[in-house]
Amino acid sequence: MNLKEFAARIGLSQTTVSRAMSGYPEVRPETRRRVLEAAEKLGYRPNISAQRLATGRAGAIGIVFQGGGRFGPHSSEFMGGLSTRLQEDGIDILVSTVETEADEAAAYRRLAASKRVDAVIVHTPACSDARIALLQALELPFIVHGRSTAEKPFAFLDIDNFGAIETATGYLADLGHRRIALINGDTVSTYASDRDSGYRTTLEARGLAVDPALIGHGEFTDETGFRLMQAFLALPAPPTAVIAGSMMSALGAMRAIRIAGLALGEDVSLIAHDDVFPYLSPDNLVPSVTTTQSPIRAAGERIGDMVLRLLQGETPEALQEIWPVDFRIRGSTGPAPA
Amino acid sequence: MNLKEFAARIGLSQTTVSRAMSGYPEVRPETRRRVLEAAEKLGYRPNISAQRLATGRAGAIGIVFQGGGRFGPHSSEFMGGLSTRLQEDGIDILVSTVETEADEAAAYRRLAASKRVDAVIVHTPACSDARIALLQALELPFIVHGRSTAEKPFAFLDIDNFGAIETATGYLADLGHRRIALINGDTVSTYASDRDSGYRTTLEARGLAVDPALIGHGEFTDETGFRLMQAFLALPAPPTAVIAGSMMSALGAMRAIRIAGLALGEDVSLIAHDDVFPYLSPDNLVPSVTTTQSPIRAAGERIGDMVLRLLQGETPEALQEIWPVDFRIRGSTGPAPA
Repeated sequence: MNLKEFAARIGLSQTTVSRAMSGYPEVRPETRRRVLEAAEKLGYRPNISAQRLATGRAGAIGIVFQGGGRFGPHSSEFMGGLSTRLQEDGIDILVSTVETEADEAAAYRRLAASKRVDAVIVHTPACSDARIALLQALELPFIVHGRSTAEKPFAFLDIDNFGAIETATGYLADLGHRRIALINGDTVSTYASDRDSGYRTTLEARGLAVDPALIGHGEFTDETGFRLMQAFLALPAPPTAVIAGSMMSALGAMRAIRIAGLALGEDVSLIAHDDVFPYLSPDNLVPSVTTTQSPIRAAGERIGDMVLRLLQGETPEALQEIWPVDFRIRGSTGPAPA
Repeated sequence: MNLKEFAARIGLSQTTVSRAMSGYPEVRPETRRRVLEAAEKLGYRPNISAQRLATGRAGAIGIVFQGGGRFGPHSSEFMGGLSTRLQEDGIDILVSTVETEADEAAAYRRLAASKRVDAVIVHTPACSDARIALLQALELPFIVHGRSTAEKPFAFLDIDNFGAIETATGYLADLGHRRIALINGDTVSTYASDRDSGYRTTLEARGLAVDPALIGHGEFTDETGFRLMQAFLALPAPPTAVIAGSMMSALGAMRAIRIAGLALGEDVSLIAHDDVFPYLSPDNLVPSVTTTQSPIRAAGERIGDMVLRLLQGETPEALQEIWPVDFRIRGSTGPAPA
């Protein structure tokens, strides 16, 4: 049974059938359900080429990772949220993994030329990011997870990284801490640069010195958190507080503090940024961990929504969101030791 | 520039160019590099339809998840490994997320009909799994991550779940434990059924009773581990040892043990199965955790290799692997309390 026969059989236009089966939201959910049930019952299988001709749509959103090693807890929570939203409309996610920045650019060219995806999600943007201008030139629709600068407006969703670390740093300063360390990502990325600014701005506003020896950078792993915290604690004037960029870095930092024989929340205070992993809750650690918190899964879900709206014709300018970050005080923070 | 012109320009056949650009391993790496560099330099962009006609290949492998919520730490490590291997050959991964078992079957029909993927990866198989016969009927090549039974042979990679839990249970019995609890997944799935068998077989071989009250089932989360361990500890005759199905369940179980005022490795021993998450190492917990260990990332990488070999024409029979599981003794296990 071809598209024409199937559409005639259920009394709908070929375009409506194609749109319903490709899963885009121009079609009402009841209609889509009716079409899918009829297709199942009558054994109709859409020919993807015919469907693409009819809708001009691939039914998939692309996401490119540089290095399979980068596929970690953040990406899985994000993908979980994204796929939860796209699933409602029957849209797939095409994951491409590449080696280098140049390979990533080549992947976008390939995706744009092959029409295998209708849009892409760009993640971990740099403060100035060549991918944005490239995708605009390719006319491949995209949403940025994070923020960047570009000549032409683009759609993005970011969290308030500046505000999060401003709050965390200010809270520690209020508790009397004067030497506050920061475990950050690579400040080439906007999120890490914003956190760095939030940290420095707050210290300066309180008249506290910014000591480069108290700022560490690296991937958000237990190992890096451990190594950086050990280095901080080995300083002639070690910090009495630390802000960890992720729950993973916090785990390592906590271990270094414990191994040094120091009491967390007494000798050393710790605040972590928590992307909310269902299997690693700050409430369940001992002591429980004070956090700045924003669920990355919710961001993925929202970006799924935004990309569908972009494909429905909303302008990039109308699809720009910055989410505030919650602050949760728990047991890992206390007054600076006398 | 079209395929014909580009191929003529670089002095290769259209088929070789198409194969090189679609990334399958019939083409030598040097040739692929030469083609890709020439394409970049000459600005040639392959037309995906032409390419598919020439190679009959989509250049993507599919994987279907039931529920975006299932996208957790195990799937991200697996996908990280899979994409690391597929990346070498320029193959993408198409992720489809669906609601129900019926939707998953519909997704395979759709993927087979649309030729959007060349093969799929089936994960978390049941002891008897309808997906296998369906994919064989659809003639959509596939690799199963896990094991199942089927009339016709199929390609799979599994770990020795029976042996892992047999070793863990036997070790605890050797330490004098008589009441050993098990935190398992849903035994509809082969992996959980195999673990259940390994546990029961070992207890029976040692003349120890199998007490259903000491066997718990649920998703591998901190929360489930906590809840099940609390229930075990509330029994009139609580266990002196527990085997947790994952590091995540182990975290929850450890918390329940701690909250009950019991010392881990003294009052209660714990062994976890560790899929090896770079951010949650059993060495870094206090006390360190005895584990059965098999990196799920390595399994993803190997399955990427196997799927490429399957597409090159190797038989499913030649692509069947069962990996032994390592056993690592650490601080969370000790002699049964007197």
